[in-house]
Amino acid sequence: MSMLAAPMNPLKGKVLVAQGGGPTPVINQSLVGVALEARKFSQVTSIYGAVHGVRGIIQENFVDLTRETSHNLERVADTPSSGLLSTRDKPDEEYCARMFKVMQAHDIRYFFYIGGNDSSDTVRIINNQARAANYELRAIHIPKTIDNDLAENDHCPGFPSAARYVAQAFMGVNLDNRALGGVYIGVIMGRHAGFLTAASSLAQKHSDDGPHLIYMPERAFDTTRFLTDVDRVVAKHGLCTIAVSEGISDASGEAMITKLMQTDERDDHGNVQLSGTGALGDLLSDTIRRELKLKRVRADTFGYLQRCFIGCRSDRDAHEAREVAEKAVQFAMWDNVDGSVVIRRPVLDYSVDYALVPLENVAGKTRHMPDNFINAEGNGVTADFHNYCRPLLGSGVPEAHRLRAPVVPKILA
Amino acid sequence: MSMLAAPMNPLKGKVLVAQGGGPTPVINQSLVGVALEARKFSQVTSIYGAVHGVRGIIQENFVDLTRETSHNLERVADTPSSGLLSTRDKPDEEYCARMFKVMQAHDIRYFFYIGGNDSSDTVRIINNQARAANYELRAIHIPKTIDNDLAENDHCPGFPSAARYVAQAFMGVNLDNRALGGVYIGVIMGRHAGFLTAASSLAQKHSDDGPHLIYMPERAFDTTRFLTDVDRVVAKHGLCTIAVSEGISDASGEAMITKLMQTDERDDHGNVQLSGTGALGDLLSDTIRRELKLKRVRADTFGYLQRCFIGCRSDRDAHEAREVAEKAVQFAMWDNVDGSVVIRRPVLDYSVDYALVPLENVAGKTRHMPDNFINAEGNGVTADFHNYCRPLLGSGVPEAHRLRAPVVPKILA
Repeated sequence: MSMLAAPMNPLKGKVLVAQGGGPTPVINQSLVGVALEARKFSQVTSIYGAVHGVRGIIQENFVDLTRETSHNLERVADTPSSGLLSTRDKPDEEYCARMFKVMQAHDIRYFFYIGGNDSSDTVRIINNQARAANYELRAIHIPKTIDNDLAENDHCPGFPSAARYVAQAFMGVNLDNRALGGVYIGVIMGRHAGFLTAASSLAQKHSDDGPHLIYMPERAFDTTRFLTDVDRVVAKHGLCTIAVSEGISDASGEAMITKLMQTDERDDHGNVQLSGTGALGDLLSDTIRRELKLKRVRADTFGYLQRCFIGCRSDRDAHEAREVAEKAVQFAMWDNVDGSVVIRRPVLDYSVDYALVPLENVAGKTRHMPDNFINAEGNGVTADFHNYCRPLLGSGVPEAHRLRAPVVPKILA
Repeated sequence: MSMLAAPMNPLKGKVLVAQGGGPTPVINQSLVGVALEARKFSQVTSIYGAVHGVRGIIQENFVDLTRETSHNLERVADTPSSGLLSTRDKPDEEYCARMFKVMQAHDIRYFFYIGGNDSSDTVRIINNQARAANYELRAIHIPKTIDNDLAENDHCPGFPSAARYVAQAFMGVNLDNRALGGVYIGVIMGRHAGFLTAASSLAQKHSDDGPHLIYMPERAFDTTRFLTDVDRVVAKHGLCTIAVSEGISDASGEAMITKLMQTDERDDHGNVQLSGTGALGDLLSDTIRRELKLKRVRADTFGYLQRCFIGCRSDRDAHEAREVAEKAVQFAMWDNVDGSVVIRRPVLDYSVDYALVPLENVAGKTRHMPDNFINAEGNGVTADFHNYCRPLLGSGVPEAHRLRAPVVPKILA
């Protein structure tokens, strides 16, 4: 690849890229997008990767991505989870001061941080610190989150692949639950936003397919209404398949799961543990079993499988995760500006545009499911959500097929 | 397809096929194998499918598979879970008497039941009843179980696809846990046999890949030794990934999960519920957190995902599931005998043979992991198991790739 002409007076120095927060199936597409795109600019002297996110910067723990083969980079791009490893550290003033010291020592002038809303806030803090310290640094946030909850984005890289996993899982659950009957609850990730839980609805093909009920954190969860819903579906279909977000809360705002918590483990951002425990699913199962006197009630907590399962991703998601990173590099190199790359969708089915917005517009903010995506009863999604989510799953989504053999007339009965 | 020449004095009448027990990703390959192969024989007047297994026979609930298109049959064959739906009913004398009445009324002379060890026992009972009632009936058991625990079989249809799901899930878990660290526990199905849990070992590629510890029901589970194991792995790798069978029991034979059970739900075979609850994973997490003072400990219970996820199956498994059914029909039609079809492996890597063995050899029996598949410490598997299991996963198994970029020398530290 020949060197591109640099803009006038380009900021010369090294590129640093890092990955923060929870992994996604396509986060390495963005990493490799930075590594390969940045090599096209002559003002870039080297491309470093920080190991374990911002913590790797503090610890001066870098690898030299300019000494990686493009072949292996492409193979890593196709591998889920953060190739540079990750962190949940949230830098404060002192943390940032130490980062700058390291960045200055290594002549780092371009910082690309791939992450969610916590990570975009980290980029914002670093950027402000750099400005205050009069250190010339381009800092760009590259979006990723399976929660799909970044402000200003139509959707976020990582979400479509996780959504596809959830949809395929529920296609299987529909088949399984139809075979043996009963009530099935699938607990899906999503602390504040219900997008991923809502994606379970894309498993519906036949009119009696589940999930029959979907509960998202955007609506207060009411146990009595929940039991009424389940009772009604069981009466109608003889079974019931339910998708529940791990983040569902009651009307007072208390998360249903904290009512059960035996540990008060919190990460550095003050978040309590929602995943990695079957507690919420088991609580809901027990409630149904006890109150509705139903026998076969099962709950699966999808946990880490939905964000790192290898072999289930959206090709569209992979391409976009690559593109947001390419655009991030292009904005920094050609326009010499800071910000957060966002995905917009000018046409419904389907194309995207990329833009750069101020970091403040995205940092620390949470986007929720819009009202027109949730049904009036608060226990399902609308056709608007289907239309929004369907194209994201990409090509080759598997489909379930049923026998259509005619019923044989009874002889004895 | 032209009609094949029937043997001398063929038993003329209808074929009945049914599916029992827990679904698998390839159980419909066997259903379709029966439906398509049986149509080649002139002594077959029609092919019926019983809806919900033996219960459908009692209820005279049949569909006419001779009035299905071969196109739709092939699409159903590629769909996970039981296309004819399933049951956990276990027929007794009276149940069987009612079945014969229905079978006689419909002139059913060939009965193929696709299922695990409970289902093979059902076939045995029906066969004995038919003989006692002087009703001429060919009854053949077609193997399927993700537990891989049928006697006389090298492996069972359904297991390779579930094993592939478990292996791919752990590949992702390895990547995820490496990115953020901590202890991860994956709870895998398998009441008495550890094959499926052991399949997690196929996720290992790099020497530090997990699962670092694997606990199977064939070895008594000891909490103290478990904690020592985890402590050692964490000291060595800074993290620990664990695969645990849902069926692990202590030295007295009590299942670890019954110590927690709040419900005494049992199915008609007297089995307690092991799946559909996160209880075992949460117990083990809590124990590690409390005793080893570790902070980030997560457990996922793979639950129903591992047996019905759409879009993850072994092509080899699909082919074999088709073949066992074709062979079942051929044994019944050409040889006019009853029995259970079994898979044998004459060469390690890789081909199979099919044989018909007496129903008594398989019915109600459980095959366990042989000793040479389990390591001396009882917390992992051997190379023998790897060699046994690897070819079963089929073609196109995804692979995880790591960055190999060189470390940048530190300037400040």
